[in-house]
Formats: sequence, structure tokens, C-alpha cells
Amino acid sequence: MSEEHLYAVVPAGGSGTRLWPLSRGDEPKFLHRLFGGDRSLLQATVDRLAPMVPAERTYVVTGGAHQPKVTAQLPELPADNVLVEPAPRNSAPAIGLAAAAIAERDPDAVMGSFAADHVVPDTATFQAALRDAVTVAEQGYLVTVGIAPTYPATGFGWIQRGEPLPGGVGELVAEFTEKPPLDVAERYLAGGRSLWNASMFVWRVSVFLHELRRQLPALHEGLRRIAKAWDGPDRAAVLAEVWPELAAETVDDGVLVDAAREGRVAVVPGPFEWHDIGDWNGLAELLGGDGDNITIGEGERLSVDDSGTLVAASGGRLVATLGLTDVVVVDTPDAVLVVPRDRAQEVRRLVEELKARGDTRHL
Amino acid sequence: MSEEHLYAVVPAGGSGTRLWPLSRGDEPKFLHRLFGGDRSLLQATVDRLAPMVPAERTYVVTGGAHQPKVTAQLPELPADNVLVEPAPRNSAPAIGLAAAAIAERDPDAVMGSFAADHVVPDTATFQAALRDAVTVAEQGYLVTVGIAPTYPATGFGWIQRGEPLPGGVGELVAEFTEKPPLDVAERYLAGGRSLWNASMFVWRVSVFLHELRRQLPALHEGLRRIAKAWDGPDRAAVLAEVWPELAAETVDDGVLVDAAREGRVAVVPGPFEWHDIGDWNGLAELLGGDGDNITIGEGERLSVDDSGTLVAASGGRLVATLGLTDVVVVDTPDAVLVVPRDRAQEVRRLVEELKARGDTRHL
Repeated sequence: MSEEHLYAVVPAGGSGTRLWPLSRGDEPKFLHRLFGGDRSLLQATVDRLAPMVPAERTYVVTGGAHQPKVTAQLPELPADNVLVEPAPRNSAPAIGLAAAAIAERDPDAVMGSFAADHVVPDTATFQAALRDAVTVAEQGYLVTVGIAPTYPATGFGWIQRGEPLPGGVGELVAEFTEKPPLDVAERYLAGGRSLWNASMFVWRVSVFLHELRRQLPALHEGLRRIAKAWDGPDRAAVLAEVWPELAAETVDDGVLVDAAREGRVAVVPGPFEWHDIGDWNGLAELLGGDGDNITIGEGERLSVDDSGTLVAASGGRLVATLGLTDVVVVDTPDAVLVVPRDRAQEVRRLVEELKARGDTRHL
Repeated sequence: MSEEHLYAVVPAGGSGTRLWPLSRGDEPKFLHRLFGGDRSLLQATVDRLAPMVPAERTYVVTGGAHQPKVTAQLPELPADNVLVEPAPRNSAPAIGLAAAAIAERDPDAVMGSFAADHVVPDTATFQAALRDAVTVAEQGYLVTVGIAPTYPATGFGWIQRGEPLPGGVGELVAEFTEKPPLDVAERYLAGGRSLWNASMFVWRVSVFLHELRRQLPALHEGLRRIAKAWDGPDRAAVLAEVWPELAAETVDDGVLVDAAREGRVAVVPGPFEWHDIGDWNGLAELLGGDGDNITIGEGERLSVDDSGTLVAASGGRLVATLGLTDVVVVDTPDAVLVVPRDRAQEVRRLVEELKARGDTRHL
């Protein structure tokens, strides 16, 4: 395949409440520069794809509230390539909408879908895996890039590799398995036949839409109606009518699990470092080793006798810490968070408390 | 004595670096509302004296940098009653300057001197002690109000009580003793004859100036020259010439220690709660019991599952904490501090680091 048929889709959804107060309802995780440097997670995702997929074939699917900021962060994208979901309906409608829109433009398209808020430092290895995935996708498979595991993760779904494909690249997916208990994850890791499911998908849009029609016909029909109206005057009306009725399915459970049983899903290994930053402690682990003191953000840090701290100095203020061990401090223009790293997963409790108070200003 | 000869002097100096970042070089401890309520420590000190000493006989001695804020916080004081030290020269020059200025106005004056940054919640008992002190001062003694101790404090100097005075009120000071080790402090407390030295002084200005002349003649002469020039056109010139030459003595070591040996210093007990807030942990102990979560400042606090925390929300932001134990968080418009309570005494290390960096903006 010539790469001129290759399209990229970046679903940019989710609020990331465990990364509050940096991540907000109107400023979710993917808009932030969490990994240092001067590019947001969204921008870094598009950067990673750019050598293979130019901006005019790159799409972002996001919520209406985020469209202006997405457009501002990605000025190189044509305005029509930012697809706006009227409301979050999970990944199958979001990715399906992009597939339908791309199919209208190029029925022979192959699309790759990559979440806006994942971290992949090694671009070259990522691109090599993407090329492998495209090769397999051209053969008519729904392809996932399975991350080569580095520890017995219990927080991700896993992909069990099956028979090798005839072309010498990729294997059938024998099974998708849910987040496992630790002993199972350890077995997966030791067995060498299991990969992490990072929801990285590559397929012909025609093949994906065919599977949607087979498994989720109402969703398929709705997306077809929306795609037909996309370039005309009725887009908003059709979206408003159809979107709320779409099933809030995930691509994984709603499409791939059964397609794998039918032998239609392949996997290529992604032997690169990959991170889905779940909470502040996860970010601290990603950015430093035990005992390291990490600072991100534009603000100034003053640290005396600290160990294992993460300071996000994003409020423009000086953040001074003394004698802290394994604590996270997040400074933003209108809110400050202090939490021990081992309680970072509970930050959503603060967000829930704000909701209960009706404090929309800080959400 | 008619109370019309009673004057109050409030030395308002010191930077309180252990209460950084709320307390700053240009906004020291006494200007802040550390004790809750809407009055600063300085205002509360003047409030406490006001029923006995009207504003026109109340003086504040402070640095030039603080004069505008002192004047703004105490609009009831005549402008001439805010005495500006050209540079900090310790308590003997500061209190001596006030004594000389008051003596020029009223040679029969009795003055009481009370630090601007101490906390005395029980105004009625304080005033009763002040009345006792005035009664004794009228007899020609240098009088200290000695705080009735509640624990074996190692952080204060102590006053050892001697012979009772003939009038039935007060006793001679047998000796001033330095900050003692714990076992000595325990003995003082158990003995019942020792009081804390809170540098609360009451005396006839003529008696104090006489002692200054006897013990620190150069200081006395310098202050006399300044006081003479105070109401004329040469005030600034004389201050600039004389002040830098004055010995940076304290009233306690420079005057009272020897005067006590001469039998000229008396003490009246101050059986009231008194606090000199030294650091954030001291403030936390003052404002709450073990495990209490305390919030001061105008900002909003969100606390989930914390224990023993002190949050000073003075930056106008939401301060959210989760799972913290015995931690201090101070939010100000341009700096945030996070420190465990048991390390609060070391906050001055951060201030020193800022000085080393040449960061005057946050000092």
C-alpha cells in the first residue's frame, strides 16, 4: 500500500480526574505537558504519527468543550479533521465516527487509532510497529499493536497471541483477557506469549465498518447516517438526533472480542516503552526512580531534604518543600493539591467532594 | 497615678522567617491574622491595650519598610506615634527611642512595652496585670510582667522571683535566667517561684532613661539627641547620623540584668495565656489539639482523611489535601510551602536558600 491511504485517528476523550487539579473537565489530561518538554500528550501523539501520516490525514475525535483547545494545540490540522462528539459515548462510536468519515473520503483507507493521552518515548520503534500493523491490516485483519510487557501489570487488559500469520509478520489474537489478578499476570509475563492491550488499532476502514455492521448494526447505521450528512447543512441536526441513541460500546468489548473468536483480529508486537499515566504516583514512577525529587511545570521549585516528591508547579508560583517523603504537590492557578503518593489513586474522592459541593469552578 | 500619664509602646520588628512564606521581609509576622479572626497580631496588641491607653498615647516602633502597612492597619494612631527606626538595632534602641520621645512630651509618663507579635487571648486578666505593673512602676521600679508558666519551657528566658515588695503587689526580680535545659525548666516549674520572661515592661520613662544613662551612656546620649531633634527640621539628619552608632543591645541583657542586681527590677505575675508563635507547628499547637485539621486564611479548604494538618489558605486558591498526617501547607499569592509539622522549625533553611539564590522576590 502506498502510505497515501494511511490515516491517523486520535480519540481525545476522558477527563483524568485522578490527575486533578491539573486535569479538569475543561482541560483534561491530554491537553497537558505531563511528560516534561513543551508538547502536550495530544501534541506528542500527533508528532509521533506525523512522519508517516501528514496533518491532512490526521483526525482527532473530541468533545465540543475541548474543540477550541485541541484546534489551538494542533493548528496544522484542517478544521474538518477535528471531529466533535456531541457527548461522550465511549470508544466504538468515537472511532466508528472517524472510520465512517474517512471512508466517505477514501474507501481504501487504512486507519490507525491511538489514544491522545498515552506516552511513547521511542518514536522510531513505534513507527516500525505501525508499519508492521499496516502490512497486516492490508491483508484484511483488524490489527492491534500489543505492548511488550515489562512487568506483571494488573491494571491493563492482556492480548494472548495465537497462530502466526502466513506473511511472517504478526499473529492471530487467540483471546483478549481482562485485567488479571497478580498471579495470572505473572504467568502471562513469564509465558512470553502475552502482550498488553493499549487500544492501539490499525485496520482498513471498510473492514472495521463491516465488523461494526455485523456486531453492532444500529451503531453502524447511525454512523452511516451521520457520515452522509457530515459535509452538508444537516450535520448538526443529524448528529443531535442520532448520536444520543448510539450504544456506548468500547471497540475492545463490543467489536474485537467476538471478531477475535472469528479469527479476524491480528496482533503485532510493540516492543517500545509505553505508559498510560493513571494518577500522580504513576507519573512520578514514570519520571523518576525511588527517592528522586521530580518537578514539572513552568513554576519554580525550592526543595530541601525531600525524597520521592513530585511537584507540578503549574500555577506560576514558587513551590517550596522541606523534609517531605513520597508526597505529591500540584500547584495550579486556582487550586493546590497535596497528597501522599500512596494515596494518589484516591484523588478522585476530592473531585467527587467538589461535585457534591456543587463547586464547578474547580472541576 | 491618673491613667492619663500611661503610655503604650509596641515594638514591631523582626521578620519571622520561620513563618515564611506568609511572613516576609516586607510583611512580617505581626501584620498577619495568624490567630484567626480579622485582626492582625499588631492590631490585636493595640486592641488589648486600648481600654487603658487611648490611641493618642500609643506608640509603635517599626522599620521604615513597614511604616505604611502599620499606619494602614492602625488608622486611629496619630502619624507621629509611629516611630521609624532607620535600621533594626535591637530592643534597647527601639524601646529607648520611644521612652525618649514620650519623655519629651510628658516627663511624668509611665510606659508599658508589649511586642507586636504575641498572642494574649484573655484581655481582662492581661489588663489586671498591667494595672498591677503600673502600681509598682509608680514606686520607681523597672517592672516586668512575668508569665505564669504552664509547662517547662526551654525556649524562653525565665524570671526568678525574689522578696515581696512592701506595697503588697509584686516582688523584686532575684535573677533573670537564660533559656534553660529541660531538667532545669522542670525544676523552675515545680518550684512555683519562676515566671516566663515575655519582654513585657512597664516603668516610668524617667526611671528607664536613668538606667540607660547609668549602664549604656552612649546609647542614652544618642537617644537624647534624636528626641531633641524629633519635632524639628533636623530629625532625619540626626537619625541618620546617630542611629547607626547606637549599640544593638537588648533591654533584657543590656539593662535589666544589672538593674536586677541593684534591686531596681520588680515583677508582677501575668496569670494569662500567652503565646509567642515561633513557627507553623507552634501555631498549629495553639489553634488545635492532636489530630485536628486547622484552616486559617480566606481561601477555601478541601480535606479528605487528613489528621493534624494546618492549612494557611492565604493565596485565594482552593487548597485540597488528602491522606496527610501532621503536615503544614501554606498557600500565598506567589509561593506555596509544604512541610511536615516536625520539620517546621527548619523553614528558615528555605529562606536562607532563597537568599543564597538572590531571590528577593519571595523573601
